Amino acid sequence: MIRVAIIGASGYTGAESIEIILRHPKAKLNYLTALPEECGSVGEIFGQFKGRCNLQIEPLDFDKLVGLADIVLCCLPHKVSMGFVPKLLDAGVKVIDFSADYRLKDTSVYEKFYNVKHTDTVNLKKSVFGLPELFRGQIKGKSLIANPGCFPTGALLAITPLLKRDIIETDSIIVNAITGSSGAGKNPSDKFHFPNMNENLFAYGVGSHRHTPEMEQVVAEIAGCDDVKILFQPHVGPFDRGIFSTVYCQPKGKVSNEELLKLYNDLYQVEPFVQICKNVPSIKDVVGTNYCHIFVACVKGKIVCFSAIDNLVKGASGQAVQNMNIIFGLEESLGLE
Amino acid sequence: MIRVAIIGASGYTGAESIEIILRHPKAKLNYLTALPEECGSVGEIFGQFKGRCNLQIEPLDFDKLVGLADIVLCCLPHKVSMGFVPKLLDAGVKVIDFSADYRLKDTSVYEKFYNVKHTDTVNLKKSVFGLPELFRGQIKGKSLIANPGCFPTGALLAITPLLKRDIIETDSIIVNAITGSSGAGKNPSDKFHFPNMNENLFAYGVGSHRHTPEMEQVVAEIAGCDDVKILFQPHVGPFDRGIFSTVYCQPKGKVSNEELLKLYNDLYQVEPFVQICKNVPSIKDVVGTNYCHIFVACVKGKIVCFSAIDNLVKGASGQAVQNMNIIFGLEESLGLE
Amino acid sequence: MIRVAIIGASGYTGAESIEIILRHPKAKLNYLTALPEECGSVGEIFGQFKGRCNLQIEPLDFDKLVGLADIVLCCLPHKVSMGFVPKLLDAGVKVIDFSADYRLKDTSVYEKFYNVKHTDTVNLKKSVFGLPELFRGQIKGKSLIANPGCFPTGALLAITPLLKRDIIETDSIIVNAITGSSGAGKNPSDKFHFPNMNENLFAYGVGSHRHTPEMEQVVAEIAGCDDVKILFQPHVGPFDRGIFSTVYCQPKGKVSNEELLKLYNDLYQVEPFVQICKNVPSIKDVVGTNYCHIFVACVKGKIVCFSAIDNLVKGASGQAVQNMNIIFGLEESLGLE
Amino acid sequence: MIRVAIIGASGYTGAESIEIILRHPKAKLNYLTALPEECGSVGEIFGQFKGRCNLQIEPLDFDKLVGLADIVLCCLPHKVSMGFVPKLLDAGVKVIDFSADYRLKDTSVYEKFYNVKHTDTVNLKKSVFGLPELFRGQIKGKSLIANPGCFPTGALLAITPLLKRDIIETDSIIVNAITGSSGAGKNPSDKFHFPNMNENLFAYGVGSHRHTPEMEQVVAEIAGCDDVKILFQPHVGPFDRGIFSTVYCQPKGKVSNEELLKLYNDLYQVEPFVQICKNVPSIKDVVGTNYCHIFVACVKGKIVCFSAIDNLVKGASGQAVQNMNIIFGLEESLGLE
Repeated sequence: MIRVAIIGASGYTGAESIEIILRHPKAKLNYLTALPEECGSVGEIFGQFKGRCNLQIEPLDFDKLVGLADIVLCCLPHKVSMGFVPKLLDAGVKVIDFSADYRLKDTSVYEKFYNVKHTDTVNLKKSVFGLPELFRGQIKGKSLIANPGCFPTGALLAITPLLKRDIIETDSIIVNAITGSSGAGKNPSDKFHFPNMNENLFAYGVGSHRHTPEMEQVVAEIAGCDDVKILFQPHVGPFDRGIFSTVYCQPKGKVSNEELLKLYNDLYQVEPFVQICKNVPSIKDVVGTNYCHIFVACVKGKIVCFSAIDNLVKGASGQAVQNMNIIFGLEESLGLE
Repeated sequence: MIRVAIIGASGYTGAESIEIILRHPKAKLNYLTALPEECGSVGEIFGQFKGRCNLQIEPLDFDKLVGLADIVLCCLPHKVSMGFVPKLLDAGVKVIDFSADYRLKDTSVYEKFYNVKHTDTVNLKKSVFGLPELFRGQIKGKSLIANPGCFPTGALLAITPLLKRDIIETDSIIVNAITGSSGAGKNPSDKFHFPNMNENLFAYGVGSHRHTPEMEQVVAEIAGCDDVKILFQPHVGPFDRGIFSTVYCQPKGKVSNEELLKLYNDLYQVEPFVQICKNVPSIKDVVGTNYCHIFVACVKGKIVCFSAIDNLVKGASGQAVQNMNIIFGLEESLGLE
Repeated sequence: MIRVAIIGASGYTGAESIEIILRHPKAKLNYLTALPEECGSVGEIFGQFKGRCNLQIEPLDFDKLVGLADIVLCCLPHKVSMGFVPKLLDAGVKVIDFSADYRLKDTSVYEKFYNVKHTDTVNLKKSVFGLPELFRGQIKGKSLIANPGCFPTGALLAITPLLKRDIIETDSIIVNAITGSSGAGKNPSDKFHFPNMNENLFAYGVGSHRHTPEMEQVVAEIAGCDDVKILFQPHVGPFDRGIFSTVYCQPKGKVSNEELLKLYNDLYQVEPFVQICKNVPSIKDVVGTNYCHIFVACVKGKIVCFSAIDNLVKGASGQAVQNMNIIFGLEESLGLE
Repeated sequence: MIRVAIIGASGYTGAESIEIILRHPKAKLNYLTALPEECGSVGEIFGQFKGRCNLQIEPLDFDKLVGLADIVLCCLPHKVSMGFVPKLLDAGVKVIDFSADYRLKDTSVYEKFYNVKHTDTVNLKKSVFGLPELFRGQIKGKSLIANPGCFPTGALLAITPLLKRDIIETDSIIVNAITGSSGAGKNPSDKFHFPNMNENLFAYGVGSHRHTPEMEQVVAEIAGCDDVKILFQPHVGPFDRGIFSTVYCQPKGKVSNEELLKLYNDLYQVEPFVQICKNVPSIKDVVGTNYCHIFVACVKGKIVCFSAIDNLVKGASGQAVQNMNIIFGLEESLGLE
């Protein structure tokens, strides 16, 4: 059994990780930590685990963790994570980090978008961007995985085949995405107060969302070019989970719907968690699963790609467990079907 | 034109009052106040009024208010209200108070449920419980109206005909009610954080909800007896507005559905805002209106009464304007149709 | 591996059964049937199974079924089920029936509530009401289980301890329940059209809901008395899943909250799927699980019991699998944790 | 008083039109018609009008209508409308038509998108596209107004200033829009069945939505050029009302956010129903109002325009009444504030 610890277990990705590991046949929750004011029995902190999990969420005791865990799912916020990860790695514990701290290879980009100096550039260099469909080969056996952002996961899976075959311009990609409100995290706020968010929908982060450089970095890497520009516009709507991405791309030449469908089917047929649909996907079909549903079509001279994922599963905890399975040489879909 | 001021204009009942007064043909918003940190132009505080209302919400200036208002809709919280009302009345301004401070005639009951000493028993004695369908005659021309709680409005309208005809036991009434989440007010909290409240429903205030004594006081008054006991159990569900009340009563003798229907139709046919339905009402039919829809039936030896209201309209701001219309001798439904 | 067939697999309880059996370590989906017009690959009929299940839903071929299944989850509607069950039993296949056809032991009650003559009284006599917390001992090894209705499951679990200890009157129980809209089934209708049901809530089935006699039968059996009367009033609200039951009971004598809590904890401590809460439960805590969360309190001379279940899991497919586990001597919670 | 008839009064735009006209100080509902099977008293057909409107919805009697109405709000479906409108106009009744039948000036485009021959090209030539902010001058005194589609209303208001100043390319406009589910109309369907649509969101009409040519026609007209191409991609989400449009445009040259803001404020400052926001708008701020909230920003070399409207008000019935007010020389915002 893989012994799993979760740091920052009291948030939504913590809860989803607990849910998945509880069902995993070859992994075992062994240690859960959170800020002192958010500790208690799992069943008290999260009512859905009452009777299902007898663990306590405790304030972090580093030595205890090292003795109890082979791998840590690190659900800490951006900037905080890089304060803990080096110590975990030094102690020989593997880390899947949910924050952005180990995703952006260019520290100047990181520092611009997160307004803080990167303090662990040594491990940053060794980290792998944990999108298995793109970087599976690099993930196996690694010690530090930067679990991708939820929006980049949905958008990148939607356009990867186009990039791999070099059939779209990389300097004019528009990613329009709509997320459920769990993306806002667990802390109450005016915008996400039920009577305000219910029956509402709005855009946010105009021109400034932190997932933009993440997408651009990966697109540049896949496409093998520097001239990458992505206009990423997120929206949030009145539902719990799911991200629907609509990506508008400029094709370099002519391509038919049939060719696109074949391209996507060919590339993704080996993937356990990507499904190419014959029509537009729906958020509800992927909620609670680690799947990404994709549809692609030529419209008015553009290629439009549609994808749907669960932001907390394929966009966070499910993908982390997928990465964990790869690291340890298990079947990739174990515990995720 | 009746000049209206709203104190505590920055909350949900404030906003709903603004909405209604803006449409009222014989009343005019003249002064709006809130706590300093919640002031600003109405269109900034409430996006729905952008371009529709040019007023500012300002910190309360008592002398300014007295010069600008014939009547105040006082949307302050319980306990705070009674600190302002005496001064308003002394200055000759009429008051419709949304808090509980002037609803409970027995100060010992007030003090038990609100954990504070009542500081304005003089005006408490003069106040009228502003449920027009029951106390219309006392409201006209009065200076201080205690606007009823939202739950008592729905429940009392549902059972009043039974009480007036003395056909139910008053010591075993069960009021089961479900409110939309705007009833929680505008301040964010864990329970009403969208990802927590959405797709959720729960009971609260078991045995302790403050609207219980309010219902019991009015039932005792209508029924003319002291032996009144109401088990009131509120629930909250994942929708913005509306209260659905299901009231279970023990009849004193036999009564048929036809007799009940006739009784309700007879009593309420003159009421502008009460509709007797031939089947169970729906919250959605009353949302945004000042109406109360009612259905009543005999079931298994009990009488079950169903009512639906909008908690912010008939349960708060609409009823306040209905009271205002009565006070000033206007047609009762003016601005509310 | 237990070989499972599902008849009537194209509805919501069919889908939920597929979901659960897919995860079950000792059961295997082997044959799925539906009406010819609702057949196709599982992933086409239910988008959420795309890539996760390669089975076809086929028109029923009786001989094929008998060769492929040890047990059938029979998700057919009331009245239809009893046309198929005798043949399945005769062929040696065990049956867990989701309809009401084998729940009501008194055929005159069945015939009154379902307006049809019962055509399989032989098997009706042998069937067991599949609420494991009450009838576990009778379920083991049986061939025909009548899977309980969703409302009876929630209500009966809430009051069973009171009945077993004989501390409430059985002739004046009021069950007020609110279900999510999946309870209406998969067929579109005006009432459940999204723009009508969203932001709505209403009561239905006043005095006539078919789950009433089911509750009364079981209460009579537990309490060992005939004088049973339950006023059951269902409501439906704007959410997918879950039933919140609020049950009002008349105690025979005095009882304290502490005694009630102890009674519930004592009775239910061995139950894998019942959790006694220290405060009111929430629907969201049980959605997607087979758990029933219960709270009980004395209020104004009554005992009020609150319970929350997922109507499609503990109220249908999860409970069916729990029964299946018991029949086959597996650990009761297998595949349901 | 303007005497108003509504043909096709039994749908959502019919109900919204009734709601608005009931409040209009200078217009009066005088005749309501629908298909025979959808007739009855207004309060029975639409529960929200119980007690508020005593009219009957009747099968259409043409002569009766002509005697009772100065103007008809024609809420018939596409293709049906052009069968009635000529007769209405011949009888001297003015018409505001909600269908697409009189919107597209090029009948070949109409016939391609609606698969039917246009049967009233005479009146088509005389009709005016009823978007007051663009064509106010042509609307006044006219007899036939083609009330715009909901999506074109939101999208066109968002980009009009850019087109008028000729600062964007017209051949590469992308309109990404998300509508509430009332846009689907009142007829139940699988997709809009509550348990399917709730917690769901998806794109539809890929490359084929009928509002595309409508947008293109108007853009060509405003921009005064033929080289117009709009990629319009609609989505639908789990809320009742509102359309959020995000429009991506290619600027011809450099432009700053400040210049854009000034441009929009200048052009729209005289408009009663357009508000330029300092940040992204929200659907909830415009629901129930005739307002369009707009925000515009330069992002990554593109101009991104955001708008929010209520699809049933500014996108349908409110805009119709705005048009009616203009036709009759009333203040444009009468009854709509």
